[in-house]
Amino acid sequence: CGKILAFDTVRSMSVQTGFTVPPPKSLQQPLSVPKRLLLGPGPSNISSRVQEAGGRQIIGHMHPEMFQIMDQIKAGIQYAFQTTNNLTLAISGSGHAAMEAALVNVLEPGEAVLIAMNGVWGERAADIGERIGAKVQKLVKTPGESFSLQDIEKALVQHKPVLFFITHGESSTGVVQNLDGIGSLHNCLLLVDSVASLGGAPLFMDNQEIDILYSGSQKVLNCPPGTAPISFNERACQKIFNRKTKPTSLYLDMGWLSNLWGYDESPRKYHHTSPITCLFALREALAILAEQGLENYWKLHQENAEYLHKGLEDLGLKLFVKDKSMRLPTVTTIAVPEGYEWKDITNFIMKNYQIEITGGLGPTIGMVLRIGLMGINCTKANADLVIRALKDALEHCKKSKH
Amino acid sequence: CGKILAFDTVRSMSVQTGFTVPPPKSLQQPLSVPKRLLLGPGPSNISSRVQEAGGRQIIGHMHPEMFQIMDQIKAGIQYAFQTTNNLTLAISGSGHAAMEAALVNVLEPGEAVLIAMNGVWGERAADIGERIGAKVQKLVKTPGESFSLQDIEKALVQHKPVLFFITHGESSTGVVQNLDGIGSLHNCLLLVDSVASLGGAPLFMDNQEIDILYSGSQKVLNCPPGTAPISFNERACQKIFNRKTKPTSLYLDMGWLSNLWGYDESPRKYHHTSPITCLFALREALAILAEQGLENYWKLHQENAEYLHKGLEDLGLKLFVKDKSMRLPTVTTIAVPEGYEWKDITNFIMKNYQIEITGGLGPTIGMVLRIGLMGINCTKANADLVIRALKDALEHCKKSKH
Repeated sequence: CGKILAFDTVRSMSVQTGFTVPPPKSLQQPLSVPKRLLLGPGPSNISSRVQEAGGRQIIGHMHPEMFQIMDQIKAGIQYAFQTTNNLTLAISGSGHAAMEAALVNVLEPGEAVLIAMNGVWGERAADIGERIGAKVQKLVKTPGESFSLQDIEKALVQHKPVLFFITHGESSTGVVQNLDGIGSLHNCLLLVDSVASLGGAPLFMDNQEIDILYSGSQKVLNCPPGTAPISFNERACQKIFNRKTKPTSLYLDMGWLSNLWGYDESPRKYHHTSPITCLFALREALAILAEQGLENYWKLHQENAEYLHKGLEDLGLKLFVKDKSMRLPTVTTIAVPEGYEWKDITNFIMKNYQIEITGGLGPTIGMVLRIGLMGINCTKANADLVIRALKDALEHCKKSKH
Repeated sequence: CGKILAFDTVRSMSVQTGFTVPPPKSLQQPLSVPKRLLLGPGPSNISSRVQEAGGRQIIGHMHPEMFQIMDQIKAGIQYAFQTTNNLTLAISGSGHAAMEAALVNVLEPGEAVLIAMNGVWGERAADIGERIGAKVQKLVKTPGESFSLQDIEKALVQHKPVLFFITHGESSTGVVQNLDGIGSLHNCLLLVDSVASLGGAPLFMDNQEIDILYSGSQKVLNCPPGTAPISFNERACQKIFNRKTKPTSLYLDMGWLSNLWGYDESPRKYHHTSPITCLFALREALAILAEQGLENYWKLHQENAEYLHKGLEDLGLKLFVKDKSMRLPTVTTIAVPEGYEWKDITNFIMKNYQIEITGGLGPTIGMVLRIGLMGINCTKANADLVIRALKDALEHCKKSKH
């Protein structure tokens, strides 16, 4: 080993070693992407401005111009979250990665975390908590319901967790959680999942005393999946930066990521290669949100959700969430109508309208149909269209149960 | 809590709670992305076909057409890796996330892992190993050198690890590791990092008996960062699917990801929202590699690297890696010329040529300059251009040391 091998030698070894896998035939066809109206719980369609940004030529992830774009993203997330937190950034992964980033950075092995569980997101958070050796306590509600301050206070007193996890927009059940007052109840850190609600329902990170908040890019923001906004307040930073053990993930370690996103004055160091085009897209998506204005966007989503709900009820369908005040404006859940297979309905609408609506997820599989009207997809015209498609489906789908 | 709140109430609470953060002014400017020729160690420039794919409108991550695209990506990675492994997929993150996915899925707490460390990637792998509670053993070489079979055999006998990690293309030092023979030495699993080498230097996963191999998208593939190819052979699957403990990461858990990527016949279940546009782009990047042909691409990178090396030596510069057979074809390292600050040189070339070349990374900071010629950027014209830029820089950059 050492001196012997010039390329010819390497190549001859290679040839000798031999190719075992030919170029695949399936890649000889052009990339084929059908046109779809995405009215499920996400992802939603991408706006053309965001699309254009995501298709740009890149620059280096450590160029000053990239840091400027990251600073703009940080400012955009601060606006979307209504926070002045300095530790505000986008995770290089999906909303799920942001959930993991929050839990992995805050919790140390043996520490107690209380998880409000009324759908799939609480289940996932509990799973992550267990994997990293935290003591996971659960506050459970039937899917379709939300938590009262009394529920939460009682559980916090009982379990004395260092962290309390709750979901703002429970997209698997269609429930929006009222967050007012929770922040002042707790001594522990409050972690809120707003993947399905951000931009579509009122949320004030600072005023609601949320310590850690994260979201996704592919819902109301109409941005490709692949980045996930997250923010930590000073209390959360105190916890994170005074850990005794390193987080189990280096990829999601806030010690590194805080530096990369300019949390302090020290020069930014290479940690990983950021998803550059996804960050371009996220920057534009946040710019659009800022232009539209949060309050206008919240109002739009609420009004169109109510319009959709009325149309669905006029069809004779039953909304899964009984209490109007608990209905998530971005994602509507319908009880699967009696005598139908949910999959027949979603398949019919996909086949005949090229529209995605979906069935349930986790605890709501088989129980609900889900319709999302988010961002640019949140229009009365889309509500009308999906109502018409549902009417058509109900008429044509063979009743397989009775 | 419960019945009281219709939207008007929620809104009035919100208004009462009050906005504290106005829309940021920085987002009122259009997105500004300068034109750059990326001749650093990565990312490289994106080809126009890949760019176009990354700028497309999306479909749902669970649509059959998306699974078809994922199947095509799998076939493309199998070709690029020269493997028939069924568990072959793209991680939803950077190459760094793929490194973490490999280690987190294979290793359980207390198990021994041997890390070949001759640059920054070994350091990172060791860091991850320690975070997840593995017993990390290190086989260390001076940056700029590679490992002999004897080195490796001795260390394997001594440490008896369950996993051996080695880097094929050490982009921080510019070293390519000869992998021939390592696979037949070991009883443990062999994990290879090919982020900086894939497509640019000969690599045969199956014939070289590599058990786990991963790479990145943003180097020779000329694809935006955000996805990372990875593959596990049957031996690795045996280890992964017979763990006693769950991996510390749910986001990177191969139990879930194997299902999402069609490893077995069971229906694909939602795990996380894939980075859809990045997958479109990766599909096209792999299609281009298949069209070009691996052997042609390897030859192209080797020839242009040698052409660049000659030009650099003609300028009086010294290559950091003395042994020609150990020079990585994709990333060339130059010893920082005496009397110069490396940063003056990279800044001069960026300012006057809009070309990125970089300094060192990790153990090579301050020691080297790094030039990457990868994929579409791997041309004699680019080699000439960067040589001219360097000549210019050497003439103009003030000597700050002597």
